[in-house]
Amino acid sequence: MLKPSIPKGTRDFSPEEVTRRNYIFDIIKETFSLYGFQPIETPSFENSETLMGKYGEEGDRLIFKILNSGDFLSKVDDKVFSEKDSNKITSQISEKALRYDLTVPFARYVVQHQNEITFPFKRYQIQPVWRADRPQKGRFREFFQCDADVVGSNSLWQEVEFVQLYDAVFSKLGLKGVTIKINNRKILSGIAETIGAEDKLIDFTVALDKLDKIGEEGVKTEMRNKGIGEDALQKLQPLFSFKGNNNDKLNSLREMLQTSGLGMKGVEELTFITDNVETLGLQTASLEIDVTLARGLNYYTGAIFEVSAPAEVNMGSIGGGGRYDDLTGIFGLKDMSGVGISFGLDRIYLVLEELNLFPATVAKNTKSLFINFGEKEALYAMKAITNLRKIGITAELYPDNVKMGKQMGYADKRDIPFTILAGEKEIQAESFTLKNMKSGEQSQVSFKELEAFLKDR
Amino acid sequence: MLKPSIPKGTRDFSPEEVTRRNYIFDIIKETFSLYGFQPIETPSFENSETLMGKYGEEGDRLIFKILNSGDFLSKVDDKVFSEKDSNKITSQISEKALRYDLTVPFARYVVQHQNEITFPFKRYQIQPVWRADRPQKGRFREFFQCDADVVGSNSLWQEVEFVQLYDAVFSKLGLKGVTIKINNRKILSGIAETIGAEDKLIDFTVALDKLDKIGEEGVKTEMRNKGIGEDALQKLQPLFSFKGNNNDKLNSLREMLQTSGLGMKGVEELTFITDNVETLGLQTASLEIDVTLARGLNYYTGAIFEVSAPAEVNMGSIGGGGRYDDLTGIFGLKDMSGVGISFGLDRIYLVLEELNLFPATVAKNTKSLFINFGEKEALYAMKAITNLRKIGITAELYPDNVKMGKQMGYADKRDIPFTILAGEKEIQAESFTLKNMKSGEQSQVSFKELEAFLKDR
Repeated sequence: MLKPSIPKGTRDFSPEEVTRRNYIFDIIKETFSLYGFQPIETPSFENSETLMGKYGEEGDRLIFKILNSGDFLSKVDDKVFSEKDSNKITSQISEKALRYDLTVPFARYVVQHQNEITFPFKRYQIQPVWRADRPQKGRFREFFQCDADVVGSNSLWQEVEFVQLYDAVFSKLGLKGVTIKINNRKILSGIAETIGAEDKLIDFTVALDKLDKIGEEGVKTEMRNKGIGEDALQKLQPLFSFKGNNNDKLNSLREMLQTSGLGMKGVEELTFITDNVETLGLQTASLEIDVTLARGLNYYTGAIFEVSAPAEVNMGSIGGGGRYDDLTGIFGLKDMSGVGISFGLDRIYLVLEELNLFPATVAKNTKSLFINFGEKEALYAMKAITNLRKIGITAELYPDNVKMGKQMGYADKRDIPFTILAGEKEIQAESFTLKNMKSGEQSQVSFKELEAFLKDR
Repeated sequence: MLKPSIPKGTRDFSPEEVTRRNYIFDIIKETFSLYGFQPIETPSFENSETLMGKYGEEGDRLIFKILNSGDFLSKVDDKVFSEKDSNKITSQISEKALRYDLTVPFARYVVQHQNEITFPFKRYQIQPVWRADRPQKGRFREFFQCDADVVGSNSLWQEVEFVQLYDAVFSKLGLKGVTIKINNRKILSGIAETIGAEDKLIDFTVALDKLDKIGEEGVKTEMRNKGIGEDALQKLQPLFSFKGNNNDKLNSLREMLQTSGLGMKGVEELTFITDNVETLGLQTASLEIDVTLARGLNYYTGAIFEVSAPAEVNMGSIGGGGRYDDLTGIFGLKDMSGVGISFGLDRIYLVLEELNLFPATVAKNTKSLFINFGEKEALYAMKAITNLRKIGITAELYPDNVKMGKQMGYADKRDIPFTILAGEKEIQAESFTLKNMKSGEQSQVSFKELEAFLKDR
């Protein structure tokens, strides 16, 4: 028999991993809730027409399709069948597909339930998504997304709140030195307009977004290749020497964009957000204008966010988001502006692990193991265990009456800090022998003393 | 454009539903953890060979298969293709399938990770499963299962603990009057042996299991139809008049099964469990021997559990489980005895709803909404909100400066109990006007007073 395995790109999570992941989720959920976001959940699979065509051609390919049940081939047109063309046959043998992200299902949810929802609607959603991507380090075929969005209002206070929310979550996680980078789609459009490259907005921003990776000359070369002229590049020059704090950058942008109405609107929005965030203050993160930030430009219409881990860890973005003006238009509901952010769970996990930031107590481990000396002794132990559990103290009985060494070994391996021994002598004295597994120290205690001792641990 | 919808048998969960479901999950998780169970998670899809053939022919049909990515038809043998046979082609175009339950993935997990696991291994797992069942009232194609198992020990103390665990969970949920029914596979085998129907064990127990539904005569008719003779039915008669408490039933069983070694072993096990549970005591549930209980007999080898909701609600079982001797044999790891139970989330939800047992405070709702009177006032409000959130008080700003009636209406619809108004006058006085949305009462308060007031709510 082959050793059992799991599909590539998927993962089993051990107790320790689940506990650590839940530690992150719990802090995020608690903070979402504190900020007035409410949880929703949507089905793991959607009708194919809900998902297909929403993520581009590449996205369509990466969506996991579910085979129809029963005699699915009986519904396939003979002509289509004879062609043996995988693309053509897919829609005839598959009507459902696994969720690819949380945004499209959320849009579908808002449209479907629009009459039950009170707008502005602040929702969060933490669920797995599936992508038939080539698995590689840190990229999985099943992973959790963790999104918060507000739809039904244009207020920029929401952008301010999202910056505060990022700061609150990372502060609670003990992750100091996070940078929240912010840009605005209108500024990117304004720059393209100013340099006379409106028609090449996408090429322009895709190239600009790579400044970090390929440097100024690389960006310029790519822009030239895309047909952006020397004149335009000349006008762009100030962007490459952007320096100073957010105010300095805003001043430079104002100068650069004075002839673009759209660009100036972007600067105004950015100013509102950075000014108010500064006045309200952040705990441990910093907010930094980054005019090269583009992220899924086609989607965003206002603010664009991206969160970088502290400089000492080499990790890409650990969060991102932005404002979009037409989330639900694809499902027939117009004029529903929204803004949202997401947290990159897997990367946050790796960062906390690398920086040793998971609290030692995060694993809700059993505090005490009662050693099993036989039926009568086990019943005596179980009475104590039952009473301990009633007041919320985790305790376990080793289930079998085996050699003490084996039972002690079990406590060791599971990192249970205290073992409790109760044999004939202890039962007579209505007491317990409490053993500290680390120090080896032993003491005789009454149940009251045992309870008080474990309660404090 | 068509109104968007979701696949039949699936559900969207609104904020209220998610919150109530999490209320149940949290109590179950907390109790699992208190009893020393640790969480694991497995991937949503497994390799098809892990799942197929494990749930019988019907099960195989109900497993959702995932279509291979890319040009999946290119790998299909031409001869197979030309037959246009859905069954034959399935394994050539699909290599993965959605989890059908949590038991088989758990068995796979134990075998795959046997060298990392400390046995006895107490794990719990709460994840969705998918079945291509015909959807009907209360039966879904996607639903959560919620299982706890111990593997690697034969100790009957674990059965005792599972009874306590059921009792603890339902007591915490405020659901009084739950009945935990218990039987033992060895007793069923013993009875079949005693009446000379060992070879008809399955038919015999399937019929007996229907006593509740079709009555004594119905059961007898079905047994006769399956070839169980009058002689055997005569010997069976005492079973139909089983009365009294658990001790009375055990005495009757001892009498009935005295010639069956296996049957007497079952009685002994049952006695151990019921005696010790009685000595240790239950909070609100009761434990009741039910010799007709069979549940997936092929699977269980010792104790069999089933939990019934209180008599006043008309709901089937809300939990069940039992002991099995060979969970992991299918994956090549022999002699791994285990015992497990599960909670039926959807039914527990319906029961709590019907009996009005969800606490009113279960929804983590925003306590206070600050009314938006414009940019300056909003900033004043946001300063207060920022400080409230820092100490864990949920508060929100209405994002837009619209008519007060609309803002108040929003607070009403979202059941936010307090609104806070701060205009020019309040800003001057460094104060806030606090309005109780229920009584209409208003009062002028300082930030300190506001904070103290909301903290107590």
